[in-house]
Amino acid sequence: MSAPDYGRAFAAWRRACGADWDAYARHPFVEGMRDGTLPREAFHHYLVQDYVFLVHFARAWALAVVKSETMEEMRTAAATVDALVNMEMSLHVQTCAGLGISEDRLFAAPESPANLAYTRYVMDAGIAGDLCDLLAALAPCVLGYGEIGARLGAEAGDTPYADWIAAYAGDDYQAVCRDVGAMIDAALARRLGTPFTAAPRWDRVTERFRMATRLEAGFWQMGLDLA
Amino acid sequence: MSAPDYGRAFAAWRRACGADWDAYARHPFVEGMRDGTLPREAFHHYLVQDYVFLVHFARAWALAVVKSETMEEMRTAAATVDALVNMEMSLHVQTCAGLGISEDRLFAAPESPANLAYTRYVMDAGIAGDLCDLLAALAPCVLGYGEIGARLGAEAGDTPYADWIAAYAGDDYQAVCRDVGAMIDAALARRLGTPFTAAPRWDRVTERFRMATRLEAGFWQMGLDLA
Amino acid sequence: MSAPDYGRAFAAWRRACGADWDAYARHPFVEGMRDGTLPREAFHHYLVQDYVFLVHFARAWALAVVKSETMEEMRTAAATVDALVNMEMSLHVQTCAGLGISEDRLFAAPESPANLAYTRYVMDAGIAGDLCDLLAALAPCVLGYGEIGARLGAEAGDTPYADWIAAYAGDDYQAVCRDVGAMIDAALARRLGTPFTAAPRWDRVTERFRMATRLEAGFWQMGLDLA
Amino acid sequence: MSAPDYGRAFAAWRRACGADWDAYARHPFVEGMRDGTLPREAFHHYLVQDYVFLVHFARAWALAVVKSETMEEMRTAAATVDALVNMEMSLHVQTCAGLGISEDRLFAAPESPANLAYTRYVMDAGIAGDLCDLLAALAPCVLGYGEIGARLGAEAGDTPYADWIAAYAGDDYQAVCRDVGAMIDAALARRLGTPFTAAPRWDRVTERFRMATRLEAGFWQMGLDLA
Repeated sequence: MSAPDYGRAFAAWRRACGADWDAYARHPFVEGMRDGTLPREAFHHYLVQDYVFLVHFARAWALAVVKSETMEEMRTAAATVDALVNMEMSLHVQTCAGLGISEDRLFAAPESPANLAYTRYVMDAGIAGDLCDLLAALAPCVLGYGEIGARLGAEAGDTPYADWIAAYAGDDYQAVCRDVGAMIDAALARRLGTPFTAAPRWDRVTERFRMATRLEAGFWQMGLDLA
Repeated sequence: MSAPDYGRAFAAWRRACGADWDAYARHPFVEGMRDGTLPREAFHHYLVQDYVFLVHFARAWALAVVKSETMEEMRTAAATVDALVNMEMSLHVQTCAGLGISEDRLFAAPESPANLAYTRYVMDAGIAGDLCDLLAALAPCVLGYGEIGARLGAEAGDTPYADWIAAYAGDDYQAVCRDVGAMIDAALARRLGTPFTAAPRWDRVTERFRMATRLEAGFWQMGLDLA
Repeated sequence: MSAPDYGRAFAAWRRACGADWDAYARHPFVEGMRDGTLPREAFHHYLVQDYVFLVHFARAWALAVVKSETMEEMRTAAATVDALVNMEMSLHVQTCAGLGISEDRLFAAPESPANLAYTRYVMDAGIAGDLCDLLAALAPCVLGYGEIGARLGAEAGDTPYADWIAAYAGDDYQAVCRDVGAMIDAALARRLGTPFTAAPRWDRVTERFRMATRLEAGFWQMGLDLA
Repeated sequence: MSAPDYGRAFAAWRRACGADWDAYARHPFVEGMRDGTLPREAFHHYLVQDYVFLVHFARAWALAVVKSETMEEMRTAAATVDALVNMEMSLHVQTCAGLGISEDRLFAAPESPANLAYTRYVMDAGIAGDLCDLLAALAPCVLGYGEIGARLGAEAGDTPYADWIAAYAGDDYQAVCRDVGAMIDAALARRLGTPFTAAPRWDRVTERFRMATRLEAGFWQMGLDLA
């Protein structure tokens, strides 16, 4: 199955990161969700850390509002913050409750170093650079989950992780990915010119994407290691 | 008519700023909306600048998401960003269209120095300090418009500015003011302790509120001066 | 007398801003220093506000350290912060003392709106964008003072402002201008490519320079208006 | 040997972090420098990563300039940035050259996750909070190296790491620690009031110190693990 079409920047970054991308998008944690062999305990550890991740990921998307230059950029970034804070995190609390993980445990969870490294790296990409640097660091999570969801939605058989897969394979999330992908393409065209790959900043922006991709792989691994 | 109850911090700041507060909340521009004597041209100038103001005010509320420490803080700040970007600014474009001011004119409007000074001061309050510094600089606009709306809703007779007054006197906006007031009280209790006025930072946080109040008065004045 | 050579970006920005640049670099305040007709009181008002300006200007140069990507960028920015904070501001206190303006008066000086608008605009340029946006907003002050100093050093006759002129016409300050100009050229080449003027961001970065240039003119005017 | 006196905040934080502090200040890496058993390769790995660390640590101290409210705060922070960028990093390049590690290898070094997690956590502490949050996250490195240097200076026998020990045990570095400690005490007194431990923010600020302390221990461990 080929990767979904989330725009030109994503396609170019994904291609540039080759083996790093596969190490994330086809991580044993992901394949374990697909075929149902992922230990339940690993999934729970992941969920708890993912809640803390979402807090800081929402903060980073809020920084994207601060760094927007057009109404379209502001609208997409603001809608993403609101969706993360006022919907996705509540959904997370609900999912965890269904698994016997209380909201108290979520809030009290000590942040793992892998989690810390990832979210603070993304935030600092935005502080150090402009919106392109920040979006390149935000993209692997948003769009990678879309790609993983779409693939597992097509490939997975009977697995206890069908709900997780359905959420990211679903039309709503896939539409988010296409919107964010289009916003990234427009933001890069505005600041780097086209073709992106000819811009002097292309390699450094791509390094942001690659580092965030590696940190995503580290995040899956943390789920396995903690279990 | 007494001021609406938007919480303890607002009441204390408002009292501390005495004459500065009245110079804003009872500015000739405001009284001109109340009794209908405000020149239409002044109102149009104000609306155009207010659009640009909202862009940067939304960016500052997004910074409040970045600086939140609790889910309640994040939720209120994120909802405010979304309301500003995905509702209030569209409403603004619509209102301006009804007055013959095109969206193009809004986007192309050169920012007045009074506008610049105000919005960038608020943003920098957040960069320099913590969430309390930022909220103290955000409060005069949000809550002052609530107070002005409520008073004019009660006092205004027949005036061409009835729509503006109705928007800010209305239940929806008054509820926003109570929510934001409660969030401010909680944020200050968490960081300064209670009573707020006994905290070593109280005077400096109050200076943030006072400066923003003066810059709000300057914003009304700009509307008159440009006309 | 032609403008000093502080690099390619400065030359291009200066040319693009034509009348705005002259309104700053040949402002009546400047010409009054040259021919000695500037009222002493105006100069004193300027000095007091300039002290507060330097505080926030140093903060903005510190943000340039935060946003640096190379050791050369960091070194130039860090040296500038240190020079501003640990030398220029002390010099300022000393100059003011010689004019009977106490350090207490400097610290207690209420910031004028023109001052506020300028410094916070520069800071926000750095928060919103990358190092190029920030440097474009920092350049008119640093390099403009160099150009004004050099011209007045050559043209001024007997004037009570000879010390001010000598400071900015002097070899030390002119060397700073050449270093900062070279750093700006390198930072733009790295991020925008060459020629700068062909980059998609060139016009927006130039707008940063133009806005800061206008705010500089407003700063001189404030000195005259307060007197 | 008792800990050196770097002020009240440091003493209180250090005490509060008990076992976490010892796990950092008496880490096997440290004891290996003391008795000379630390493998040379581990030290080299540490030095390379420490160079990258210093880049981002200097950026975080620059953020402290941005967040300063008094001239004393600005002066100490600006002097620290300048010392890090224009002295300590050059010294580092020199030390590494003496060990056969070229400047090219330093610049090209891929940042380890432990390094990334630490420096970006410190930076984000400053973005999220005020100067106290940032200083609490900066303190374990600056003052911990002072304590370790002082102890090893007194305890170490013949060891190949005598130069490293002498640098941090020396009068210059110990004076820096006392200055930074005094600045921290003043910054906390200004914002939290005294006694610090009675302030509502004390526990959260102490958590910043504790997290940075754990990340410092992780940094030593990385040196051992990479070797």
